[in-house]
Amino acid sequence: MIAGIEMGGTKTVVAVGQADGTVVDEFRFPTTHGEETFKVAIDWLRERGEATAVGVAAFGPVSVNKARADYGQMLQTPKPGWAGFSIIGALESAFPDVRVVLETDVNAAVLAEAEGFEDIAYITIGTGIGGGVMADGKLLHGAVHSEFGHWFPRRAPGDDFAGVCPFHGDCLEGLASGPAMTKRWGKEPKDLLDDAKAWEFETHYLAEACMTLLASVNPARVVIGGGVSQAPGFHAQVEEKLRARAKGYFAALEENTPFVVPPKYGQQAGIRGALLLVGS
Amino acid sequence: MIAGIEMGGTKTVVAVGQADGTVVDEFRFPTTHGEETFKVAIDWLRERGEATAVGVAAFGPVSVNKARADYGQMLQTPKPGWAGFSIIGALESAFPDVRVVLETDVNAAVLAEAEGFEDIAYITIGTGIGGGVMADGKLLHGAVHSEFGHWFPRRAPGDDFAGVCPFHGDCLEGLASGPAMTKRWGKEPKDLLDDAKAWEFETHYLAEACMTLLASVNPARVVIGGGVSQAPGFHAQVEEKLRARAKGYFAALEENTPFVVPPKYGQQAGIRGALLLVGS
Repeated sequence: MIAGIEMGGTKTVVAVGQADGTVVDEFRFPTTHGEETFKVAIDWLRERGEATAVGVAAFGPVSVNKARADYGQMLQTPKPGWAGFSIIGALESAFPDVRVVLETDVNAAVLAEAEGFEDIAYITIGTGIGGGVMADGKLLHGAVHSEFGHWFPRRAPGDDFAGVCPFHGDCLEGLASGPAMTKRWGKEPKDLLDDAKAWEFETHYLAEACMTLLASVNPARVVIGGGVSQAPGFHAQVEEKLRARAKGYFAALEENTPFVVPPKYGQQAGIRGALLLVGS
Repeated sequence: MIAGIEMGGTKTVVAVGQADGTVVDEFRFPTTHGEETFKVAIDWLRERGEATAVGVAAFGPVSVNKARADYGQMLQTPKPGWAGFSIIGALESAFPDVRVVLETDVNAAVLAEAEGFEDIAYITIGTGIGGGVMADGKLLHGAVHSEFGHWFPRRAPGDDFAGVCPFHGDCLEGLASGPAMTKRWGKEPKDLLDDAKAWEFETHYLAEACMTLLASVNPARVVIGGGVSQAPGFHAQVEEKLRARAKGYFAALEENTPFVVPPKYGQQAGIRGALLLVGS
């Protein structure tokens, strides 16, 4: 039996399942502070017997780079009770003989959605925006991990909204997250489905994001998930705008149609990815 | 004895040297078409005896991803006599028992400049702009390879120059390469050293580029090389603008000062990197 934990900003999912990512049993509960959240997850796992391995898909910033002294810990975050909390420490002291693998939530989702691709990126648009990357068959970390939501896109023509990111104002997350749409238009994304201008702006920013990924990490596919991406026609509009920017220059884009797709596993990508982290 | 070949747009360098990247002997000659260029390099190497391995640092687009059917070949390029030329084929038929490793020129430069870093990026600004990345100790390829010069930065305030990229107009290369500076200001970069506005724009674009790398591949250092980067104070200005954008958010930036640096090996980074490709 293997286990997975997906830590989200508002809810945590703990599951037992199979090496191919199939969830056999799962429990969803509200995320509180680090110690309490992991106590609930660990107690639930103990009731199901000893897992041989636990994969963790964590919100960030989190130290997933084994070369760092703070490997396994949550890094500086305004979220109460998380900065410095050691995920690896909590799990290893509860389950001393169990293998633990830690990844960012978006990288775990990449793993779930990669099927057949060695070079693929995943963007999730919800309360925040995050990006995960697999390049050359390996999940990309870098010195800490990608913070793709805090990259600065070019403005959509006519968009003078200041942005909602408390750090950067008009970074991708500041201009295109769910709360950014709600603040800019005075309605939640689900109530904006008939507002063509709202989606013109939104797909502009995601096309900018795909273009940047194409020029930097050069994926063969970009998966866009999260609540905001569920608007009808969303992925096709992003792809159309991406191709208009790319002008036939990028072989990775020319060779792969569709290039911008929704996640096959939807809201299950994160917990499936957590299982896959220890599944092979 | 190991050998290295650095293919540049205008000149090619072929060298023999040591596993640590030290060049023992080298020959520089004009790059013509693929077959002729490699004949010159191969003849020069034959005169120096049989190398046990050859590392090649190639301009792009070039297929460096072994998973591709066209591995080892130059891809579609307007450069006469290069599209479809097989670098690996030419070297393997000349030296059947010799190990050949192929990389992009910018990735080879990363290898030469990486010393001690597992996560580092390299940007060269000359006739074009290219970017190479090492992440988690591995050179990054993706589906084909990075084309960082063709990523779109935000405009510098007051810059309405159309850009010189024949594909994309105002991509990074279109706005900030040597020819872009020459066309925008009517003078070559070396004759613009006293023009504060020219460098205000130029360092804006490179700070945008560093910010994008930080948010996507998350290096612990960015090396900027190439002729344009040799203006006095260039790297410090880019770093200052980068820190103003990042607002203390990125641990990789906060933990590494200086973050934006010139290449230690200058114009030798490419050929040293070619040797290092087969040096370990």
